[in-house]
Amino acid sequence: EYFYKVLFFPDEKYPCLFYSWKGGCDAANCPYAHTETNFKILGDYLYSAKQSLDVCVYTISSSVLCNIILDVHETGVLVRIIVDDESDNFTGSMIQKLRENGIQLRTDKSSFLMHHKFVIIDQEVLINGSFNWTRSAITANNENVLITNQPNLVKPYKGEFDKLWKTFAPK
Amino acid sequence: EYFYKVLFFPDEKYPCLFYSWKGGCDAANCPYAHTETNFKILGDYLYSAKQSLDVCVYTISSSVLCNIILDVHETGVLVRIIVDDESDNFTGSMIQKLRENGIQLRTDKSSFLMHHKFVIIDQEVLINGSFNWTRSAITANNENVLITNQPNLVKPYKGEFDKLWKTFAPK
Ligand SMILES: [Zn+2]
Ligand SMILES: [Zn+2]
Repeated sequence: EYFYKVLFFPDEKYPCLFYSWKGGCDAANCPYAHTETNFKILGDYLYSAKQSLDVCVYTISSSVLCNIILDVHETGVLVRIIVDDESDNFTGSMIQKLRENGIQLRTDKSSFLMHHKFVIIDQEVLINGSFNWTRSAITANNENVLITNQPNLVKPYKGEFDKLWKTFAPK
Repeated sequence: EYFYKVLFFPDEKYPCLFYSWKGGCDAANCPYAHTETNFKILGDYLYSAKQSLDVCVYTISSSVLCNIILDVHETGVLVRIIVDDESDNFTGSMIQKLRENGIQLRTDKSSFLMHHKFVIIDQEVLINGSFNWTRSAITANNENVLITNQPNLVKPYKGEFDKLWKTFAPK
């Protein structure tokens, strides 16, 4: 009745955005993957959001993941993001771009790490694992992502998100 | 029938090893926690290993976690550890100490990150999450740990461990 999906990285290739989610790729020698990579599967889950997408990750520096969030936001899904306050300064950080596009974003306010890497889709599906939202997490590092709608797992992460969202509210 | 346990960090205090796992603490003003902290619960799971403990984590620099591994190893449990090859050089790294105590340890051989943070106990229980085995993960960072014996989750991580263990074998 409940589903359990586990993805391991690295993928061999970065996914082709056009092929994967934009209706097709016309490039003659497209260097990106035109196959069902692990990242393609992860992206499909993110795109499946209908009401809400709660993202709680250390940093977001992958432009593909940033684009997916912006696409989902544009369909009217309520997107909320929590990242580490230092992630603004990381190379390739997408934080400012997300803010500029009107996405609600909060950060911790400590020198310690907001080190989570989890996402909750429509309050029902949990994505969790070692995967930071960086480019190297996709095609270089050894990483894992666990996806499930098992309520005994989803519920505590929902509670943690709501707790941190309140804790990190602007004063 | 299957269990699902989720722990969130930081804990307020570092656990007292004596109180938690050595039969009691006699210190008059012990600065460590004499309560059921999240770390105490995590440690109890690690100590529950009877046959095997497979640890696949980015780095091990927490002396408490190192001590638990050595204790478990001493009871005759087969301990296998995979860490990132750079973790040897991190401040407070416990890698050399684990090696010197006869524990089987393998590393990746790339400039990319072996970024997993999972453990398999007796081939039956999975521990996974954002938690690196560092001191700051326990009482400083925001971290999560998910523990379950759900076979649909345990099985793929067992496969990943075995795959990496072979891949990282000494030539
Ligand atoms: Zn393409
Ligand atoms: Zn004590």
